[in-house]
Amino acid sequence: MIAKPAPSSIAIPTTMKAWVLGDPDELTLVDKPVPRPGPAEVLIRIDAVAICATDLEIISGGTPALIEGELPFNKNFTPGHEFMGTVIELGPSVDEFAVGERVAVEIHAGCGRCERCREGMYTSCLNYGQNYGQHDKGHRANGYTTDGAFTQYAVNHVNTLVRVPEGMSDETATLIVTAGTAMYGLDVLGGLIAGQSIVITGAGPIGLLAVGVAKALGASPVILTDLVDERLQIGLKLGADHVINAGKESVHEAVARLSGGRGVNYVFECSGAPNAVDDAVKLVNRGGRVCLGAFAHEPALVDVRHIVSNNIYLYGIRGEGQSAVKRAAALMAQDKLDAALIHTHTFPLSELPTGLRYAREKLDGAIKIVIKNQEI
Amino acid sequence: MIAKPAPSSIAIPTTMKAWVLGDPDELTLVDKPVPRPGPAEVLIRIDAVAICATDLEIISGGTPALIEGELPFNKNFTPGHEFMGTVIELGPSVDEFAVGERVAVEIHAGCGRCERCREGMYTSCLNYGQNYGQHDKGHRANGYTTDGAFTQYAVNHVNTLVRVPEGMSDETATLIVTAGTAMYGLDVLGGLIAGQSIVITGAGPIGLLAVGVAKALGASPVILTDLVDERLQIGLKLGADHVINAGKESVHEAVARLSGGRGVNYVFECSGAPNAVDDAVKLVNRGGRVCLGAFAHEPALVDVRHIVSNNIYLYGIRGEGQSAVKRAAALMAQDKLDAALIHTHTFPLSELPTGLRYAREKLDGAIKIVIKNQEI
Amino acid sequence: MIAKPAPSSIAIPTTMKAWVLGDPDELTLVDKPVPRPGPAEVLIRIDAVAICATDLEIISGGTPALIEGELPFNKNFTPGHEFMGTVIELGPSVDEFAVGERVAVEIHAGCGRCERCREGMYTSCLNYGQNYGQHDKGHRANGYTTDGAFTQYAVNHVNTLVRVPEGMSDETATLIVTAGTAMYGLDVLGGLIAGQSIVITGAGPIGLLAVGVAKALGASPVILTDLVDERLQIGLKLGADHVINAGKESVHEAVARLSGGRGVNYVFECSGAPNAVDDAVKLVNRGGRVCLGAFAHEPALVDVRHIVSNNIYLYGIRGEGQSAVKRAAALMAQDKLDAALIHTHTFPLSELPTGLRYAREKLDGAIKIVIKNQEI
Amino acid sequence: MIAKPAPSSIAIPTTMKAWVLGDPDELTLVDKPVPRPGPAEVLIRIDAVAICATDLEIISGGTPALIEGELPFNKNFTPGHEFMGTVIELGPSVDEFAVGERVAVEIHAGCGRCERCREGMYTSCLNYGQNYGQHDKGHRANGYTTDGAFTQYAVNHVNTLVRVPEGMSDETATLIVTAGTAMYGLDVLGGLIAGQSIVITGAGPIGLLAVGVAKALGASPVILTDLVDERLQIGLKLGADHVINAGKESVHEAVARLSGGRGVNYVFECSGAPNAVDDAVKLVNRGGRVCLGAFAHEPALVDVRHIVSNNIYLYGIRGEGQSAVKRAAALMAQDKLDAALIHTHTFPLSELPTGLRYAREKLDGAIKIVIKNQEI
Repeated sequence: MIAKPAPSSIAIPTTMKAWVLGDPDELTLVDKPVPRPGPAEVLIRIDAVAICATDLEIISGGTPALIEGELPFNKNFTPGHEFMGTVIELGPSVDEFAVGERVAVEIHAGCGRCERCREGMYTSCLNYGQNYGQHDKGHRANGYTTDGAFTQYAVNHVNTLVRVPEGMSDETATLIVTAGTAMYGLDVLGGLIAGQSIVITGAGPIGLLAVGVAKALGASPVILTDLVDERLQIGLKLGADHVINAGKESVHEAVARLSGGRGVNYVFECSGAPNAVDDAVKLVNRGGRVCLGAFAHEPALVDVRHIVSNNIYLYGIRGEGQSAVKRAAALMAQDKLDAALIHTHTFPLSELPTGLRYAREKLDGAIKIVIKNQEI
Repeated sequence: MIAKPAPSSIAIPTTMKAWVLGDPDELTLVDKPVPRPGPAEVLIRIDAVAICATDLEIISGGTPALIEGELPFNKNFTPGHEFMGTVIELGPSVDEFAVGERVAVEIHAGCGRCERCREGMYTSCLNYGQNYGQHDKGHRANGYTTDGAFTQYAVNHVNTLVRVPEGMSDETATLIVTAGTAMYGLDVLGGLIAGQSIVITGAGPIGLLAVGVAKALGASPVILTDLVDERLQIGLKLGADHVINAGKESVHEAVARLSGGRGVNYVFECSGAPNAVDDAVKLVNRGGRVCLGAFAHEPALVDVRHIVSNNIYLYGIRGEGQSAVKRAAALMAQDKLDAALIHTHTFPLSELPTGLRYAREKLDGAIKIVIKNQEI
Repeated sequence: MIAKPAPSSIAIPTTMKAWVLGDPDELTLVDKPVPRPGPAEVLIRIDAVAICATDLEIISGGTPALIEGELPFNKNFTPGHEFMGTVIELGPSVDEFAVGERVAVEIHAGCGRCERCREGMYTSCLNYGQNYGQHDKGHRANGYTTDGAFTQYAVNHVNTLVRVPEGMSDETATLIVTAGTAMYGLDVLGGLIAGQSIVITGAGPIGLLAVGVAKALGASPVILTDLVDERLQIGLKLGADHVINAGKESVHEAVARLSGGRGVNYVFECSGAPNAVDDAVKLVNRGGRVCLGAFAHEPALVDVRHIVSNNIYLYGIRGEGQSAVKRAAALMAQDKLDAALIHTHTFPLSELPTGLRYAREKLDGAIKIVIKNQEI
Repeated sequence: MIAKPAPSSIAIPTTMKAWVLGDPDELTLVDKPVPRPGPAEVLIRIDAVAICATDLEIISGGTPALIEGELPFNKNFTPGHEFMGTVIELGPSVDEFAVGERVAVEIHAGCGRCERCREGMYTSCLNYGQNYGQHDKGHRANGYTTDGAFTQYAVNHVNTLVRVPEGMSDETATLIVTAGTAMYGLDVLGGLIAGQSIVITGAGPIGLLAVGVAKALGASPVILTDLVDERLQIGLKLGADHVINAGKESVHEAVARLSGGRGVNYVFECSGAPNAVDDAVKLVNRGGRVCLGAFAHEPALVDVRHIVSNNIYLYGIRGEGQSAVKRAAALMAQDKLDAALIHTHTFPLSELPTGLRYAREKLDGAIKIVIKNQEI
């Protein structure tokens, strides 16, 4: 569906529907006041939001970076973070966007005042989660530490906004941020990947879009691994040169064969599997690089000696960064990356719990579930 | 001892004494022909060589990178790699050095023809160990895969040579390459370390010289950890701002206290301890970086989720690289780094086995044992 | 003079003395209300401010970046930007600093919302000068586009503050930002300069402190050029290995001799002389790099073919950047850089016009004039 | 034309036809012995070579980098450097390529022993032109300083070889190196150009292929300037989003309009026009970057102050570098870059003088003239 052209002035209601998280797994649909934008902020009418695996964690187990800090379960807020919508009100001083523009929204707004934000690494903000009251340092992580997108309206800093390419459906536009994370993973590996070999481990949404971005930028060969043939098939549609079902054949042997015995230049680890890091460092050649983009659940055994002997670099990333989301949007605008291939289901906002169940249980081949927020 | 000025022409004997490795731990002193330099090479009279922990491994257990490739025990060659000497003959086309110049020698000469060498990463040479006969790709690793320095003369490529600063003793000059490795570890962390906080884990030779290099470049604070108080004391002499005996207090608590609870910017892991990597990633702040410079012996449990959540980068290095050895020599020439502090014992070449025993058993507070190669 | 310890609470007056710029060269001392800090800001009692050559330009000819944009002469504000002082009030949410701490202050606070700020390049803020009324994007450049330091109190964003090392005089602390700019110039050249050769052209404050920073980091040789022997003498005190009076000998011949005919690795151009860029690109070796740090007054003839044939890179910098000021402060705290050598005169705030005259006419060997802002 | 499959063993004649340069503009077709490959080298049967503007300079005016060094006119050698062919003999130790493989050939083989080669910057080799007799440092620049490709056979180092993608014609394969230079220009600008704006000034072969590479990597918008409408039309076919005839409208006004008044992120200067550098630095936004890839003929007036005020970086490149040629070949193999669009004419080796005349006088819309070397 292509969103209808938005008028230059859009009526703003005073209240909205919002899902609010109570105790683990307790989501309630309530009425909340529509927030208003401050300086450098805009108010967005949320048109669509995709469900991410991390949403399931936040709702059931707690916000990742916070529980590591041993904080109590984060509740009384609205989760949801992969969203897009329409700008409907500008805060003071904003002229970067106009009312009526469609935007996708990055998750992280750094505090802008810590050492990391000052060097441009806003996803590594040292004030992560410092966003309340007198301790409000300005950090925002939609749906992680601050109110997110399982609702109808949201305020966001202009830094986090990326224009939705003309003609792109709302559903596809929710995947821009996912594609941006995939692109950022390739950025930290060096970014100059045309003609370079890469293995992407794990055919979840980020891994699949990483295949698409890598192919769009000319990587060759692009090898995708997973345990599920259906997902590998989507990888092939997104351009993977080779797919390996890790449950059916040895990934090491297959990659050795495909790389003339030397290993590949890069691995982008998107599976979170227990042995994933140790595997990854053994799939790259000497001097190779590995991006770690999945939240593993248990500490993993890693052959550190192999990393040292072979001058291997590893880069952990917690999400998008730099201008990767904007660059990924450009590839999508140019039809170089068909992100829509991973969108499988759509539900109205009122049926969010159903959507979450499809995502959690991977019902009916679910990959990306999109919620339409104005349908309720 | 300051080496006597060398004449512009130095007599070259036809044979020399050399220790040759047979089966594990079998070193024999034999007579061998003095080698002659080819194009881009020089003949060096070896004046002194320091014993490195890796020498002990190579002699007892096999050359690290080779055994990982499951090759047989590397024998019938001369180990030893941290050496310096005097140029006594120039190969064809060499005018970069003159006969009589004193030089320290980097371990690695890349093949110059693989993808890594072509990008300047010669320590990650993809033809590592390809140095014999028709398969000779040109890679050289003194004392690892090719003849090293427990002998009296050696041929080396001009790429591997660094001038010894005037007035520096032979013994100290053997430490230039060690200092270069320490510097390279800081390079890969970003290199701009004045005023930045760093923990160096492990007070072996590389860790101790890393303290010295970090202080020379203005890092602050520099925190050193180890289990041995005597080594930590030397760290203090090299400029460490704080030392932590990991056997007596919690490194995490101490570092948290010293860093205002945030963790440090960098960790340079030089211990090879089983928990070292997991500790390291938890000592840095969000967005922090870790250099892995020690050959651990067993796979280690690592909290991958923590790496991902916190955007942490890890850099394995197998030794010196880029121009780090030359830069380290410059710091030593300017008396900014007193590497001599880690030199503890000296033996003549004929007593190499005694020197190795001191190194292995850490007798009499041994850190760096230097062998004088012309004394036999 | 070492500043007296500040109490944890310091009385804040309601008005202060401030020099205000009217038409070109018209400075008037007036009473103004003391400003109050907003979120992420602090109020600083200005203890000392140094006069920079750019102050003279701003006062007589207009703010550089603004006149290039062909805006009218910037007036009705307070110039002055190289300052330090004492934190006397914290804005909401500030706990990064405490009342009573002494701080030096970077000139630029980026808007935090443009593409450049978002990537950490706040000195290249695309909203430069957008700092008024509804168009206030948040950019601040003390004494350039917003009120500066020829007054007694100022509000600044916490991003711009660097702690003054203990025991450092107010006068010396005003030079921290100058040293930071010098360091940033070396950063953009790559930063790994131990043992690397560099020519610094122009012995003004930035050039002289660049000598000091380069030596502190181990560069070798460091060659300084200027037309004034007295300034070159100060360069020698700051550690220059060689100085060249460009009015008395050929810089090219001297550098060729000192570099074995090959040229140096780096040039940091701090003179703004008409031929400076063309000279600089011919002083570096093939693949060499040049930092341009001086505001030249006229377009210059440049041999572009030479730049292209020799793979030379040039980096324009308009001031400090990244964390260079903090890193420079660390070198000063460690007594590795004696910035006080360039401080020549001190005047009370009431005598600012005299100080400006000394600076403009270089009276009595004037290099850095410091104004003590509480003396009036 | 698709080259016929090559047998695994190909007959090697003892002599070949070669054009040899005498005094300026004096080319003579002679018989020469076919050279034989040494270690790390292969013998190539040259199938096709494209004429580059620099060939015309070398033949008429002298080899660029040499005349800058004020050396005499380089003669008695064979020019020509943009070539491809078939491997017909392997030197000792070569197994990277097989007899019968089709390869394109990079121009530069660095000496492998200077500071620049050691850091991977082989196009900045400090031993440029040091390739004869006892002074032979190993540097090679086909057709510049050593024998090139206006002949039938050539020996080249394996470092310089890139496989020709299957199914690509000989003529198109001669453009791989040109495309590699275009790609390298984008590399030095940062390389992450999807969704970034760029102006390419000059629609010669490098400029045109830069349009193609930039579009292949997702840059947007890509703006091309030139004085010749026919060339701009080819730019549109290669994907330019906008073209500007600089003789008919103001480039500054057009770019300002297309970039919302801010300027673009990058300029790749490929024209060599007198005002090109000054224009370029004014087309980029603050913090923007400029690659200089054209050999200008006269020193140019440049507004240095503008470069400094706006933190602009400039990167001179003298040709291809790093692995850019291999990466460009990958884009061509994936049909992402239709380099054949710039190939306009073909002549047999015997008619080289005619080909050169077409190139020099741009007869009949000539852009790239290809010589078929086995047709004589």
